[in-house]
Amino acid sequence: MPAAISSCRPASATVREVGLRDGLQSLSVVLPTQRKFDWIDAAYAAGQREIEVGSFVPARLLPQLADTDELVAYARRLPGLSVSVLVPNLKGAQRALASGADLMLVPLSASHAHSLANLRKTPQEVVAMVGEIRAARDAAGSAMQIEGGVGTAFGCTLQGEVPPDEVLRLMQALLDAGADRVSLADTVGYADPASVRRLFEQARRIAGDRLCCAHFHDTRGLGLANVLAALETGVSRFDACLAGIGGCPQAPGASGNVSTEDLVFMLESMGIDTGVDMEKLLALRELAGRWLPGQPLHGALWRAGLPKTFRARAGAAA
Amino acid sequence: MPAAISSCRPASATVREVGLRDGLQSLSVVLPTQRKFDWIDAAYAAGQREIEVGSFVPARLLPQLADTDELVAYARRLPGLSVSVLVPNLKGAQRALASGADLMLVPLSASHAHSLANLRKTPQEVVAMVGEIRAARDAAGSAMQIEGGVGTAFGCTLQGEVPPDEVLRLMQALLDAGADRVSLADTVGYADPASVRRLFEQARRIAGDRLCCAHFHDTRGLGLANVLAALETGVSRFDACLAGIGGCPQAPGASGNVSTEDLVFMLESMGIDTGVDMEKLLALRELAGRWLPGQPLHGALWRAGLPKTFRARAGAAA
Repeated sequence: MPAAISSCRPASATVREVGLRDGLQSLSVVLPTQRKFDWIDAAYAAGQREIEVGSFVPARLLPQLADTDELVAYARRLPGLSVSVLVPNLKGAQRALASGADLMLVPLSASHAHSLANLRKTPQEVVAMVGEIRAARDAAGSAMQIEGGVGTAFGCTLQGEVPPDEVLRLMQALLDAGADRVSLADTVGYADPASVRRLFEQARRIAGDRLCCAHFHDTRGLGLANVLAALETGVSRFDACLAGIGGCPQAPGASGNVSTEDLVFMLESMGIDTGVDMEKLLALRELAGRWLPGQPLHGALWRAGLPKTFRARAGAAA
Repeated sequence: MPAAISSCRPASATVREVGLRDGLQSLSVVLPTQRKFDWIDAAYAAGQREIEVGSFVPARLLPQLADTDELVAYARRLPGLSVSVLVPNLKGAQRALASGADLMLVPLSASHAHSLANLRKTPQEVVAMVGEIRAARDAAGSAMQIEGGVGTAFGCTLQGEVPPDEVLRLMQALLDAGADRVSLADTVGYADPASVRRLFEQARRIAGDRLCCAHFHDTRGLGLANVLAALETGVSRFDACLAGIGGCPQAPGASGNVSTEDLVFMLESMGIDTGVDMEKLLALRELAGRWLPGQPLHGALWRAGLPKTFRARAGAAA
């Protein structure tokens, strides 16, 4: 017998561009800072109002993101733009606080094995670190938001299963330690629409509106279906990368993050307002192809182009 | 304010393989009949129980499908396999009746412009033809099912908008003319999850369980999200092509049909039983790559491989 499912959809949604961080960190090339400025300008001109511009990690580890300070300074001058950065530790958080970004994302991996391999800390140690970051933020009198991002929330390539109860426990622990908000990430592309719905519904009951964002990878083709499932639990902010850049180290040729242009296209087609101008976004996608020659780019819309019916339908549904 | 949506999901679903017809007809190469036999055998061994093996169109128009008679004869000997064929006209229907296939799919394009360009008939003329086909079927004392497939149901590359009321009117007309069942197809990849939900809900109210199948293309990346939306209105049969073959003549490089392996993966991951063995299906996908060298193949799962958690999760959700 079919199981009844109750669902709702927001009238508007935000696509947070994370290509400059999560995308570029996976590519071997270093995109020049000026090109990143151009990217930020074009994304802003297309209507994007949340951009993760980089990460405060040592430049020797991620030379692709060594110009994060400059990018924050550049992006901050754009009115109404929320500028976010990733920080992996307290030192990174101090650099973020000094930079004047609006939001810092602190990643926690719910997979113990992935956490040790990636962050060299247990999940519990990351929770404790978020407490220190919160104290540092408050001591600095900063209004910068702290987002705790729970990754490998749907499983892990190293340890396999990640129990949902553990994901939810760690999410609660992040909030208790002082994160202003939390998000859930399918870091390795293991999620499916049913597991997304279950976990986001449970997470919503715990975190309420502090559950602020969903981060899906399209590694196995389910990225947008997972977005739809999360959307129907009330999530209205999604991370995405222009041209789906990001890749998956475990699977050569496989795509990484959900592509910004496909995601915005889906939302706008559904009559969900993203504030983004599709034509301008596709023009930026075209530029990205020129800026990143030979790099693996993904996404479907840019090849096929917008439907003839796009404007009419999006307008009618709105 | 979020709009409430009620939805349900079936416990099991059928993926109808249409790669041998809708896929191969779009490729320039002619796959040898023996390879098609191998494909049918491998798909059957993987658990697929509905296969569209070809089309009864003149061989000069589609040499890729000239061996449809042989394929029906071959596939019929597999116990429990439902063998379907596409027929564009009465002559094709007579060949289908003689072949002993289980189902004939008669396509109707709800777009007047597309119908004239593709079938050289108006939609209303196709409805009348279905009446003749039904009479021929009944006169032959055949148990063969007639499926009326309403294409360009979400818009058309030629005329743009296709009014939903016109789609529903033609679907009703097909049933009135004698089709045993009907399906809806997004022939050009214009659908989005919101339009899918609206149209399938309306169609269900008209056709009830005679609304038997959804056919989506992945031209703009929304194929699986559209499947999810249709699934939540109670649809439990979906067309798909192995390796997403099919293409889109209007968009070089763009994918065509939803890929069978990605679709089965999504459904099984969600705990929806398809009867298909994922490993065997991926082995067939591998073969298809060797059979069709240089052809545009699509889909994401085959690159990334199954998640470590696949069996456990699918088992737990079932």
